[in-house]
Amino acid sequence: DAKNLLFLPGDGIGPEVMGQVRKIIEWLTKNRSVNFNLSEGLVGGACYEAHKCAVTDETVQDAMDADAVMLGAVGGPQWDNVERHARPEAGLLRLRKEMDLFANLRPAVVFDALVDSSTLKNEIVQGLDIMILRELTSGVYFGEPRGVEDLPGGGQKGFDTQVYTDAEIIRAAHVAFDLAKKRGGKVHSVEKANVMESGKFWREVVTKLHAEQYSDIKLEHMYADNCAMQLVRNPKQFDVILTDNLFGDLLSDCAAMLTGSLGMLPSASLSGKDENGKVRAMYEPVHGSAPDIAGQDLANPLATILSFSMCLRYSFNMAAEADLLDQGVQNVLGAGVRTGDIMQDGMKAIGCAAMGDALIAE
Amino acid sequence: DAKNLLFLPGDGIGPEVMGQVRKIIEWLTKNRSVNFNLSEGLVGGACYEAHKCAVTDETVQDAMDADAVMLGAVGGPQWDNVERHARPEAGLLRLRKEMDLFANLRPAVVFDALVDSSTLKNEIVQGLDIMILRELTSGVYFGEPRGVEDLPGGGQKGFDTQVYTDAEIIRAAHVAFDLAKKRGGKVHSVEKANVMESGKFWREVVTKLHAEQYSDIKLEHMYADNCAMQLVRNPKQFDVILTDNLFGDLLSDCAAMLTGSLGMLPSASLSGKDENGKVRAMYEPVHGSAPDIAGQDLANPLATILSFSMCLRYSFNMAAEADLLDQGVQNVLGAGVRTGDIMQDGMKAIGCAAMGDALIAE
Ligand SMILES: CC(C)[C@H](C(=O)O)[C@@H](O)C(=O)O
Ligand SMILES: CC(C)[C@H](C(=O)O)[C@@H](O)C(=O)O
Repeated sequence: DAKNLLFLPGDGIGPEVMGQVRKIIEWLTKNRSVNFNLSEGLVGGACYEAHKCAVTDETVQDAMDADAVMLGAVGGPQWDNVERHARPEAGLLRLRKEMDLFANLRPAVVFDALVDSSTLKNEIVQGLDIMILRELTSGVYFGEPRGVEDLPGGGQKGFDTQVYTDAEIIRAAHVAFDLAKKRGGKVHSVEKANVMESGKFWREVVTKLHAEQYSDIKLEHMYADNCAMQLVRNPKQFDVILTDNLFGDLLSDCAAMLTGSLGMLPSASLSGKDENGKVRAMYEPVHGSAPDIAGQDLANPLATILSFSMCLRYSFNMAAEADLLDQGVQNVLGAGVRTGDIMQDGMKAIGCAAMGDALIAE
Repeated sequence: DAKNLLFLPGDGIGPEVMGQVRKIIEWLTKNRSVNFNLSEGLVGGACYEAHKCAVTDETVQDAMDADAVMLGAVGGPQWDNVERHARPEAGLLRLRKEMDLFANLRPAVVFDALVDSSTLKNEIVQGLDIMILRELTSGVYFGEPRGVEDLPGGGQKGFDTQVYTDAEIIRAAHVAFDLAKKRGGKVHSVEKANVMESGKFWREVVTKLHAEQYSDIKLEHMYADNCAMQLVRNPKQFDVILTDNLFGDLLSDCAAMLTGSLGMLPSASLSGKDENGKVRAMYEPVHGSAPDIAGQDLANPLATILSFSMCLRYSFNMAAEADLLDQGVQNVLGAGVRTGDIMQDGMKAIGCAAMGDALIAE
């Protein structure tokens, strides 16, 4: 039966890169016996222009009902001064929260063909393959109380609440341990247990779950500042990194940049199973909306295409097709075509659409 | 008149590296007309062994009264299971808070002689010279309420409070802008204004202060995740980075590691002027207590020596002597001697004490 897939292209280069996924879906529909029910919605600045909000209730409902959501990117300078609740990011945060997408999988992988693009020395990053499991629906991103208040003696304070329940930590940790099982068998759990109560609590809960259910997995605890250091010093020591929403935001961006090819990195955000056994899911490239190159056919569509491959693998159980896509990406890189962001001497520069076509040809 | 200097060697390699500063003080006393009143105290695990706490009230008072404090390093695995309030870190946090050392200056500098030690490519880090101004006495490190609580429906939550007043932001920002004035004239103010109320507030307060008093300085706002990325992508775009306690913890460690020579990086933590015009100050190397090499004469004393140079410069107004020390460090590196952490092919490996002696000889 048909897979219900919701497209949210968003802003900037979002529509272009998502256009290449459309081509791939057409190809799959023609050449494989699969059937997609595609619908499309607005999110971010694109939604603001139409509805003065970052995402509509209807689109949130569509996202909840879909088998999976593919998101391009949101944001751009023209919405910098929009009120906070209607800014592009707010749409993304609302989708994450309402869909309960607590498990954000962010791989940081160095493609052999692109190892030279990294600012790090080849021997430090060659073969790098880290999976960051970032908790995505709690922590300081959503904790209450938060706000700005007048102080009794004059002046003001701005404040936020960092908070995690044991249930929230446990469900994220399960995903990390399960990922490690299928990968290198090692989890680094990252917090600031030495200065934060929530960090100390995080460490205790993860330690307990590990002892009870995952003693075959190697678990190490690491402070977030040390993790930021170790990512630069020797990133290959990591297999799976389990961390909270805020640390995950910084550390996954740092890890992504180690690879030197942001334009290649996909991500998946997953919920738990609901009463009907359904897992909600949203897939998106790690890169942003890149307003400076939008609409010029310069963007690299491969991160979005690899996100779609994660969608095939995790949401649609189509591992063969996902493998095909992943292999296709290796092949086009091997064939020497490059978009501008990953351009190297001696390679052939092509645009976003041509990269999509090259992949189809493979 | 004599400068009152309190030595807190602490744990691990702390005593060894501080020993080399002692030699330098002896040399200065003999060869320059300066007079130091040295006293010494316990902090961290060393204090725990003697008094079952991380620092005594008396030592805190001595630190408040001193013209400056030189700290080695604290911590070690043997104190991992000590109750939180008596752990080595607690001593450090208490000194920071009670001395009101809100301005933490963390330079990340690449020494020409050591550019190869970085895991980043030479062209990315050669000549790197960043100053991170980390707010050190507020934010989530000290915010209340914090704790672990039972939830009504069962289970527990761990929580912390991220909080900044405008006064706290302003005094840190002043230091950053003043540093930029003497350096490259550029400040990046770093927060997560897109998801945190305290971050949005931080941005507003910094923007206002800049417009009112520092419009000659170039100010850019940057999200913390992007800053983590940009530090890896192109660190030389930064001059001064102004950020809060927690982001500063991660970002300064990341920046420090870019240099590839943690054993070379000093830091200074300063208070504002008290009613008598006195600025309290603590100087310490960025590296930790390195228990694995402690007591073996293997540590690199240069970070501590450069911290002492910052002490001469900022607390004692002895710029000439500070320059002499900084130049001495360049010279010993130029002469090809290295401790193990910065060892390179063709150089001469020496120990901690010998490095101190080499510097004196210079
Ligand atoms: C756009 C922003 C709200 C978001 C975040 O902070 O989570 C982004 O940085 C990310 O990592 O997906
Ligand atoms: C030891 C620890 C409490 C401390 C911190 O988190 O501030 C350290 O990491 C630092 O950066 O000085």
